[in-house]
Amino acid sequence: MQNLFRMLTLIYAHPYPLHSRVNRALRQAVDGLSGIRTRDLYALYPDFHIDVAAEQSALAESETIVLQHPMRWYHTPALLSLWFEKVLAYGWAYGHDGAGQHARALQGKRLLWAVTAGGSQTAYSASGYNQHTVHEMAAPIRQTALYCGMEWLEPHVLYGTGQLDAVALARAAQDYRGRLVQLLGEKA
Amino acid sequence: MQNLFRMLTLIYAHPYPLHSRVNRALRQAVDGLSGIRTRDLYALYPDFHIDVAAEQSALAESETIVLQHPMRWYHTPALLSLWFEKVLAYGWAYGHDGAGQHARALQGKRLLWAVTAGGSQTAYSASGYNQHTVHEMAAPIRQTALYCGMEWLEPHVLYGTGQLDAVALARAAQDYRGRLVQLLGEKA
Repeated sequence: MQNLFRMLTLIYAHPYPLHSRVNRALRQAVDGLSGIRTRDLYALYPDFHIDVAAEQSALAESETIVLQHPMRWYHTPALLSLWFEKVLAYGWAYGHDGAGQHARALQGKRLLWAVTAGGSQTAYSASGYNQHTVHEMAAPIRQTALYCGMEWLEPHVLYGTGQLDAVALARAAQDYRGRLVQLLGEKA
Repeated sequence: MQNLFRMLTLIYAHPYPLHSRVNRALRQAVDGLSGIRTRDLYALYPDFHIDVAAEQSALAESETIVLQHPMRWYHTPALLSLWFEKVLAYGWAYGHDGAGQHARALQGKRLLWAVTAGGSQTAYSASGYNQHTVHEMAAPIRQTALYCGMEWLEPHVLYGTGQLDAVALARAAQDYRGRLVQLLGEKA
């Protein structure tokens, strides 16, 4: 009966995993949940040579894909940018395959963007020092998902990571776990 | 009297330079202009190991910085994302340096985003298949410039690169040259 429920691939992209406090705590809160498989991009590909077939295979077997990373210059860390370029390839995620058929490997899958931001929610507003909301910053990522026919879920955003004390971080980690548990529990 | 006029660094980022038609033509139209120095990121750093000191030095000597690249998933190619992370470093582009002083190496410099897009301008609209304008897609890049205290110039966008015939491409290359000549000619 397992395949009535969702399989979830967590794409984890922290450029300096040993220095991570917040993303590591979030990840630890969900590692080992039934149905989750985590791919730690910077651990797998420290030289930026992505195994495209392995990545595509993991995505093909999942109904839900989570991109978890800290914001880097208002976008993804560079290795995740490269992952978009290499893995979401013409002839697989979009366009036409070798047989002339529409390539839609990700069609109908759900994408959750789980991002942590150093700035507060106030900083991410028209009057804040970042001048844009996180929703506005997400335009390239959201449209990438939509272009591939994926369902864009409401992002999971954790603000003010530099100010989080241990209690707030533990609560944030449980919130994240709750969100993923919910996604895993919904029938496909 | 040379330093009355602008020095311009062109950061060129095409992931497959040998397969470039449009960006190569644009670049050739401006290469050799007086005051321009081009840094071809994929030629310089095929292994993604960026020489941060060399990049910072080039920027420090320039009043105008141009980022020229094809759109990749509605953002920059991955090596340019990495360049943002490594070159626009804490303690140099923002934050505080080792002596506790505000680090503002890029303060007051002008940034021109020169991007080519496969889609038409119609495709980049709320009703088009990309659902967002290029201005909306630019939010992370624009805010990166503003965060570093740079002046964000009106972007130079070339749409519909797949449909450009030789005449249209030659015209686009001259338009680009004209824009950069104008920027170079303005007194600092």
